[in-house]
Amino acid sequence: MRKPKIVVLGAGYGGLMTVTRLQKAVGVNEVDITLVNKNDYHYETTWLHEASAGTLHHDRVRYNISDVIDKSKVDFVQDTAVEVNTVDKKVILENGELTYDYLVVALGAESETFGIKGIKEHAFSIINVNAARQIREHIEYQFATYNTEEEKKDERLTIVVGGAGFTGIEFLGELVNRIPELCNEYDVDFHKVKLLCVEAAPMVLPGFDPELVNYAVSKLEKKGVTFMIGTAIKEMNETGIVVAKGEDQVEEIKANTVVWAAGVRGNSIIEKSGFEAMRGRVKVNPDLRAPGHDDVFIVGDCSLMINEEINRPYPPTAQIAMQQGEVCARNLVALVRNKAELETFTPDIKGSVCSLGHDDAIGVAFGKKMVGGKASFMKKMIDNRALFLVGGAPLVLKKGKFNIL
Amino acid sequence: MRKPKIVVLGAGYGGLMTVTRLQKAVGVNEVDITLVNKNDYHYETTWLHEASAGTLHHDRVRYNISDVIDKSKVDFVQDTAVEVNTVDKKVILENGELTYDYLVVALGAESETFGIKGIKEHAFSIINVNAARQIREHIEYQFATYNTEEEKKDERLTIVVGGAGFTGIEFLGELVNRIPELCNEYDVDFHKVKLLCVEAAPMVLPGFDPELVNYAVSKLEKKGVTFMIGTAIKEMNETGIVVAKGEDQVEEIKANTVVWAAGVRGNSIIEKSGFEAMRGRVKVNPDLRAPGHDDVFIVGDCSLMINEEINRPYPPTAQIAMQQGEVCARNLVALVRNKAELETFTPDIKGSVCSLGHDDAIGVAFGKKMVGGKASFMKKMIDNRALFLVGGAPLVLKKGKFNIL
Repeated sequence: MRKPKIVVLGAGYGGLMTVTRLQKAVGVNEVDITLVNKNDYHYETTWLHEASAGTLHHDRVRYNISDVIDKSKVDFVQDTAVEVNTVDKKVILENGELTYDYLVVALGAESETFGIKGIKEHAFSIINVNAARQIREHIEYQFATYNTEEEKKDERLTIVVGGAGFTGIEFLGELVNRIPELCNEYDVDFHKVKLLCVEAAPMVLPGFDPELVNYAVSKLEKKGVTFMIGTAIKEMNETGIVVAKGEDQVEEIKANTVVWAAGVRGNSIIEKSGFEAMRGRVKVNPDLRAPGHDDVFIVGDCSLMINEEINRPYPPTAQIAMQQGEVCARNLVALVRNKAELETFTPDIKGSVCSLGHDDAIGVAFGKKMVGGKASFMKKMIDNRALFLVGGAPLVLKKGKFNIL
Repeated sequence: MRKPKIVVLGAGYGGLMTVTRLQKAVGVNEVDITLVNKNDYHYETTWLHEASAGTLHHDRVRYNISDVIDKSKVDFVQDTAVEVNTVDKKVILENGELTYDYLVVALGAESETFGIKGIKEHAFSIINVNAARQIREHIEYQFATYNTEEEKKDERLTIVVGGAGFTGIEFLGELVNRIPELCNEYDVDFHKVKLLCVEAAPMVLPGFDPELVNYAVSKLEKKGVTFMIGTAIKEMNETGIVVAKGEDQVEEIKANTVVWAAGVRGNSIIEKSGFEAMRGRVKVNPDLRAPGHDDVFIVGDCSLMINEEINRPYPPTAQIAMQQGEVCARNLVALVRNKAELETFTPDIKGSVCSLGHDDAIGVAFGKKMVGGKASFMKKMIDNRALFLVGGAPLVLKKGKFNIL
């Protein structure tokens, strides 16, 4: 009897959780599991803002996939998925093809620029390890160059963060700690540095409790951030951004560093492969399968689930991706073992904490609002928990955050 | 009785040695001494190649001028000299003017591009602290960017060093140690990196013993440097350099980093102020004064002295600048005290050691040829001695090199 072949695309939170749960649940000869990932490492997407600001080394943000998979049960293929052919049940990779009986698409998010002119070409996005360390080095290079020029260009010291959502605010929280270090390193006057947060919506951190949001904004403002809320970026060019001002007017803001953190979408492979989707996110069935595809699960940022309470989609988070991975693994086992019923996925939102640097945060956990050191401690526990769920205590000891107040 | 006013321009090796010797030799009420320098720190020019490669932090390469001057005798003015008016006996600064009775011009060197098109605009020069840390960050940014691009641009990993003289070779010596670290940091394949040394002259390290030069070249080649000797850079543009090939042909070399280390000249203020000079260097009298100017001493890289043995100028070195500073200080004291005779300066070349990274070197010291660890040790002793001569044991303890093999 041929062993069923399970292919998992992506070793992010959802994919890696699926694989690590699956390898525990099945016997060595029960299924063929193949994990495909672009890099030989997993990275903590939710920590990338730290690597981007330069407050945490990018090697602290990633770990080898080989450290957490059971090689007796899982084959690892380092390659990039190009397209899924659901008719022939195969995945086209850059350097090959893989057939599957069951597929898990866990390819994560891409930056969404909403068609704003020039963002794609000129802005950075905190999207992976490569991008994060480039942002870190780009900012540092601007500071390093400032004093070498006869005529000082203050735009070298202007950093625009597009978006006041989770990523934008957490990135700013790291930057306000990092900037004084850079000023010291490169003999730059702190007052020359401008940190702007430009957000089209009329609010910061939508969905967060207003009291917590006020805490975050006033803390960041005190450390030098200027918020331009309700201000849409109209376009970006080589010298900076153009924002809407009033009804018909625009204002140019010169800035050598623009980090776009205003939106993500699912992986573009989703549409390329013919799945029905909204911005690369497939509204999956309750059992996490793609509608019309009994052999394809979609988890993480490429999946879309509606929060019935507010009739809006759940935001794409690591928390949900990991919970999906657990259910996806159990449903795969059920399919392989010909069980009739698949499990239904319901997100269990334990809370949400937004960091403001390594020593401050705001958040809600287990129904309790918290700010400052307490929230920051909780954030680190959440970060360590993500490691624990995939790699157990050894991974927490290796990569965990212990700089606790 | 009015106190004679001595103004010293520049706090490099020559200027700082002049001031520190002078402040020991005179009484508090004997003369007015004013030291003018662009920065409030002195830097070790001969260590800048390390800061540029990123193997030594730039703060290790500089120290505060206030740490070594005697404030009861020396006023420090942080400003940039623009021109010397020898008729009115005053110095024009960017933000003021200073009159003098005696002037010491110790303004150091500038990069000399010999009119090669594009070098000034596109190449880096290892010329000061600002430039050094920019070079370090520029190279790092190229490595950080390499993996973020869909289509890999290998020219990001190509570093051209123009010139196989002292600075070029010492910089390459640091780079060959630094590159593997950068490859590791940014997941870059070491074999993609190209280190080219392009030199118009038919030789490496002119003036060095051929046996030592062979040692250096073979060591650097083994670590990945390609030498293009007898190859002139014809021009430089945004994408790289164009070199002469054969009689009429040229070859383009794509490179995102070009460091020009093929020549220096004296400060352009020299010509602007009407001193007769060759490439910004004044052929000074044996007592170190400028011909026709009994009240102006010129020391360091702006001075030119002929080595009678070979009928060629001495190369501009820290060693000579510091020895000149000592004689200049004594001659200033003699003038102030109305002594009839001034001292004649004769360089006392104790040797020359060229480093090849922190653990290797070639050189001649006290008439003895040496390579490897022994030469590297000697190099560090020379570096520490420069600190000792200006700031004594405390400065050596603070900034000295103790990473001895």
